[in-house]
Amino acid sequence: MPLYNHFLLPENQSGRLDVVLVSPRNPLNIGAAARAMANFGFTRLAVVAPYAPNWREARSAVGAPQQLLDAKESATLAEAVSHCTLVVGTGTLTYRKPEQPVVSLPLLAPLISRELARGGHVAVVFGPEKHGLTREDLSYCHMLVEIPTDERQPSMNLGQAVAVCLYELASRVSEETCTPKAPEPETEHTHSVAASGDLELLAGVVEEAMTAAGYSPRSMQAANHHDLRLLLRRLAPSSRDTRRILGLFRRILWRLNRNQKSSY
Amino acid sequence: MPLYNHFLLPENQSGRLDVVLVSPRNPLNIGAAARAMANFGFTRLAVVAPYAPNWREARSAVGAPQQLLDAKESATLAEAVSHCTLVVGTGTLTYRKPEQPVVSLPLLAPLISRELARGGHVAVVFGPEKHGLTREDLSYCHMLVEIPTDERQPSMNLGQAVAVCLYELASRVSEETCTPKAPEPETEHTHSVAASGDLELLAGVVEEAMTAAGYSPRSMQAANHHDLRLLLRRLAPSSRDTRRILGLFRRILWRLNRNQKSSY
Repeated sequence: MPLYNHFLLPENQSGRLDVVLVSPRNPLNIGAAARAMANFGFTRLAVVAPYAPNWREARSAVGAPQQLLDAKESATLAEAVSHCTLVVGTGTLTYRKPEQPVVSLPLLAPLISRELARGGHVAVVFGPEKHGLTREDLSYCHMLVEIPTDERQPSMNLGQAVAVCLYELASRVSEETCTPKAPEPETEHTHSVAASGDLELLAGVVEEAMTAAGYSPRSMQAANHHDLRLLLRRLAPSSRDTRRILGLFRRILWRLNRNQKSSY
Repeated sequence: MPLYNHFLLPENQSGRLDVVLVSPRNPLNIGAAARAMANFGFTRLAVVAPYAPNWREARSAVGAPQQLLDAKESATLAEAVSHCTLVVGTGTLTYRKPEQPVVSLPLLAPLISRELARGGHVAVVFGPEKHGLTREDLSYCHMLVEIPTDERQPSMNLGQAVAVCLYELASRVSEETCTPKAPEPETEHTHSVAASGDLELLAGVVEEAMTAAGYSPRSMQAANHHDLRLLLRRLAPSSRDTRRILGLFRRILWRLNRNQKSSY
């Protein structure tokens, strides 16, 4: 979306961030990872020792063929990350005691941002579906990142884990690197609220309709008048909506009065 | 992970946040959504008009059977969100001009947080894989949330979109609710917002009044119906105000119909 493109990494930085999948078993997951990369503006995919020889044809990568076609295949993780200055391993830590520093995903962005800003090259490494990164894989990592999940179900689907990590990196890294901040997105909330006079006009017509419909007994009219005024301020309709509601009530009033006459 | 469990929503709040999937075509995606819910501590899944009758057996939901087993199925979105006080639609806006306020995903959390904190019930609604939510679906939404994506590939995989949204909500909503803030000053503004079903009831009576008053020619009825639904979400009347307005329109309608009869 053009509106929010300031959330994406500048190209000279996203070109230095690799997504590395170690021994993915299901080609659909490789495709899903590629699609998430396309969604969040990342281009460099590396696949280490893939299980299926035909992984590049993964069909789930709707609209993300380029990431798949350009993906590098290597036999070992060592090879895949040999050019990287910061290697970050992903996964749940529920069942193991980490040997590296662990950061929670929301805190990773500033670290990666700093590394990219000083010209470094970063890899974010994802393990195979079933058991995640091995202890040996992790030994290539400078740090581990953990996606905060529920302890009752900590293990994420591979494609979803990639999506969540890249979303976080795309939005927070660019927050870091893009100060001064882009102006707040214009929302449809920005509407001109009706002037008090317009609300009074509307209140008058609604009151007439109340009377014509027999809604408001004479003894209640003052109270209803007051409540109606408060109500309209609470609702705070835009001037356009006010005109629209006015139109409806004018019509209702006209019909009530016409019927009134014809029925007597 | 125990370390980060403070990132998850407190249970009394996650039990008031529904994930709603409208007409999902692929049961695997329903399973993926359920798994992401389990990962981030959400329990309430609703499926509207699913494509496959056997959707509940989706196998991709490793470890997330409970969310699937407990999922509610309904025929219409109106029914699924009738108890909700804040309905948030998701999707890309590249190809359409939104009629509701749009917030970027990172800014959504405080809004949802406030709604949950005051006892409201929130729905986050996801459309079908191919084309996303329809214009009619969106008319039940108070606001739209947009995941900031690359304009060259804005459309996300359904399971990944659910994962990214829930990750963001689980981590940032709980940030909000866990920082002890001074309680909001009680003002006249502090009101319980009407549930979606109450607004539908009101819309129905207003429409009848429109017809009875001859406001809405047959050719305009669909458009007016749509506009009215949006208008009521913009105004966001409290449940008390909604009852009051309903009372007025019921009276008007009754009178219009009575006169109608007596004048023919």
